[in-house]
Amino acid sequence: MTPADPPPEGPRSVPPARRRPGGRTARIRAQVLDAVRAELGEHGYDGLTMDAVAARAGVHRATVYRRWGDVGGLLADVLDAASDDDWQPPDTGSLQSDLAALNHEIQAALTAQPPIVASLIAASFRSEQADHAQRRLWEDRYARCEIIVSRAVRRDELPPRTDARRLLIAATAPLYHQLVLLRTPPDPHLPGHAARTAALAASAGAFATPPPAGDT
Amino acid sequence: MTPADPPPEGPRSVPPARRRPGGRTARIRAQVLDAVRAELGEHGYDGLTMDAVAARAGVHRATVYRRWGDVGGLLADVLDAASDDDWQPPDTGSLQSDLAALNHEIQAALTAQPPIVASLIAASFRSEQADHAQRRLWEDRYARCEIIVSRAVRRDELPPRTDARRLLIAATAPLYHQLVLLRTPPDPHLPGHAARTAALAASAGAFATPPPAGDT
Repeated sequence: MTPADPPPEGPRSVPPARRRPGGRTARIRAQVLDAVRAELGEHGYDGLTMDAVAARAGVHRATVYRRWGDVGGLLADVLDAASDDDWQPPDTGSLQSDLAALNHEIQAALTAQPPIVASLIAASFRSEQADHAQRRLWEDRYARCEIIVSRAVRRDELPPRTDARRLLIAATAPLYHQLVLLRTPPDPHLPGHAARTAALAASAGAFATPPPAGDT
Repeated sequence: MTPADPPPEGPRSVPPARRRPGGRTARIRAQVLDAVRAELGEHGYDGLTMDAVAARAGVHRATVYRRWGDVGGLLADVLDAASDDDWQPPDTGSLQSDLAALNHEIQAALTAQPPIVASLIAASFRSEQADHAQRRLWEDRYARCEIIVSRAVRRDELPPRTDARRLLIAATAPLYHQLVLLRTPPDPHLPGHAARTAALAASAGAFATPPPAGDT
């Protein structure tokens, strides 16, 4: 669910693209996507150009234009590449601590320097291709995180009919809201607080489906 | 807390600037800010120009340049003007229904057509002046909403030491996350669900300060 490669892989902020078997084509893609991340981290969306990426990657600019088309195509491929990993959410033994660990990864990604993840989110307001790719990546991350909820159901921490996606959104949304939209300074307690809030609400039946008729 | 004028004032998406006493200067400001909202709603940030705003407002372009400087200055003034109202959050008699009513206002604002509020948020990623003004506006809205929490405390729905801001963020963040960042289609149940989740968590002590040591 974290917005791009860095969080899942830990505190590293510019993950190296995966060197896949496949020779020259794969190698060029890795070089180019590394260059996009580096340029984006240094200059943001407004400073990102096809030519600078080609130069930094050491790849002929005609190749970059032919394969990626424009800056939106480059950003979309960076985002799509971020799903191409084996990231799994933390498994710490309880719902609340799983959510807290996840939120710590998200906070680390959103506050990393250079701000690759934050820049990709900002770019998704500018480029339709980046927007679609960012949504695919979020969908991928939230889908992978549903195991946090199914584990909690197996441990009898949650009722079987729990809306995993709504629970995950409730647990993680305050991080994005504060760091991406309100742009408040990072609060070291927020990852844990937001996790605890969601876990308490879940225990009280907030994400049961269909919702119970009564109140608390 | 809603991001700009429209939500507080209801479903209307392009609020007329307030016609204040004060004559020509105030009238010109009102005309120009109306024009900014209209241009932004029609063309978004990328299509917003000083000249188009001047033409639409029927104001000399030199006046617009002299008074607002650039597009960032125009956007910042639209956002600052949005705080200049007497909006108060809904008072419906219970914490959960106050939060639900607030969330319905937010959802209406974020999905309104033309998308003034959404465009202003997007613009805050582009212009430093708009960013600062957007943050001032959010601060103003969240501060005004704290009365929702103090009323709930007076009704004994919440303990006296409740962190109002964290509760309000928890209640509203899922709306912004889904509509502004994840860009999922509006879910008519989300305003109520998110309000209920926050109210249940609050009843369970999630926003008590300092947090109680135990769990549920």
